[in-house]
Amino acid sequence: MVHGKGFKSRGKSLKKQIIIDTALTVFHRKGYRSATLDDVAHELGLTRPAIYHYVSSKEDLLSQIYIQAMEKFFNIIYEIPAMELTPPEKLRLFISRHLNNVVIENLAMFSVFFSEENQLGKQEFETIQVEKRKFSKVIENIINDGMKQGFFRQVNARLQANAIIGMTNWLYRWYKPEQSVFHPDEIVEQFTSLVEKGLMKTVSESDIVVDAEYMDVHATKLRTKSQIMQELKASVHKTASLINELENYPDTA
Amino acid sequence: MVHGKGFKSRGKSLKKQIIIDTALTVFHRKGYRSATLDDVAHELGLTRPAIYHYVSSKEDLLSQIYIQAMEKFFNIIYEIPAMELTPPEKLRLFISRHLNNVVIENLAMFSVFFSEENQLGKQEFETIQVEKRKFSKVIENIINDGMKQGFFRQVNARLQANAIIGMTNWLYRWYKPEQSVFHPDEIVEQFTSLVEKGLMKTVSESDIVVDAEYMDVHATKLRTKSQIMQELKASVHKTASLINELENYPDTA
Repeated sequence: MVHGKGFKSRGKSLKKQIIIDTALTVFHRKGYRSATLDDVAHELGLTRPAIYHYVSSKEDLLSQIYIQAMEKFFNIIYEIPAMELTPPEKLRLFISRHLNNVVIENLAMFSVFFSEENQLGKQEFETIQVEKRKFSKVIENIINDGMKQGFFRQVNARLQANAIIGMTNWLYRWYKPEQSVFHPDEIVEQFTSLVEKGLMKTVSESDIVVDAEYMDVHATKLRTKSQIMQELKASVHKTASLINELENYPDTA
Repeated sequence: MVHGKGFKSRGKSLKKQIIIDTALTVFHRKGYRSATLDDVAHELGLTRPAIYHYVSSKEDLLSQIYIQAMEKFFNIIYEIPAMELTPPEKLRLFISRHLNNVVIENLAMFSVFFSEENQLGKQEFETIQVEKRKFSKVIENIINDGMKQGFFRQVNARLQANAIIGMTNWLYRWYKPEQSVFHPDEIVEQFTSLVEKGLMKTVSESDIVVDAEYMDVHATKLRTKSQIMQELKASVHKTASLINELENYPDTA
């Protein structure tokens, strides 16, 4: 009995929302197929007939959960392409928004979302598939733009998008908010750095000089003088070791 | 009726295996909870009583599937740590083995493995969790070794292991062998390159000179003279642009 006490004093639309939230908890705990409307009613301290004023069936509840999940998961991602940001910044924002979305408060919703889609009606199932492809396309386009603009090395954008989606979505399988030793920010940072470094061109991969300069200008923003100094030392060292390598290269002519 | 014809002529242990394989197909298609032993028998052109000679229950079939899945998925990963390979090579082998395992022929098994573990008995469920932690630890140790030996930058090995496992496991959600435009080798290559570049130190991050030299020696193996020349040009360019940047740095002293 989670919401029992406050339920009766709420307005109709809020009551419906409380029922949906409770159904989400019950479906997450018992699995959709094992859960009944009686379980949902019991959790609320209500009878099943009382629930029928607000929802028509268990299937209806699942539909409502999916509609709300789509709004939560997809809309804040669909905003990203139109933003005034570079592709690497967009990618970082995607990972941060998507992970926080999953981690911070929607773990149960996300888990039901990925576990029960086969229980949806045909048409709703298809709607979800269309949205998932659209979601995937957002990241694919960011990666494609990043390649065109010289930030990212040449990769297969679709496969890399799948890798990134997999890495972030999988969180719902291992992240336990109540037990985790990791702060959500740390997870975002670790995942973002893996992807950024994994996709970014290294300087020696920049085939066009203007790209390298563009990147340098962007990279500069956050660096102190001593960091640039450190990088210069490393660069001189690298240059020297390359000359050394060429000097010792077997003479095959 | 998949195996109907050949079934009767087989030996007992092969018959049992045919039943397990058929159950896997049925569980994958219908979901474990919706599937019945009658469905499995029907698929084989047998009666349910005939199946009872080989397996005691639907739960028994699920157990058998999990036992075989553990052998398939985990054992070839557990071999990796003892191999005479560098940590980056081990990581590459892990991704390749794990993806091929999932992609090439065990997609149905993997899908059941990840969808139905809540249907297992308490003890079996616990066994699976222990194995999953052990599996995860293999990658975590490879990343830790890679950091100690100067190949990888400093990361949180556990979170990176989770990222890599998520990226590879998620394949079972999107890969459709019969429709895919991607060859499994291409998936392995794209995922491996993301992870390798994501974890590898860049030269400017090498804090110890001997590490940088060690990496240079390793990186050298595959390069031609003209590639080194290209890299040298890029390195000189980078050095020059860093000097330029320092020259223009605002004088705050």
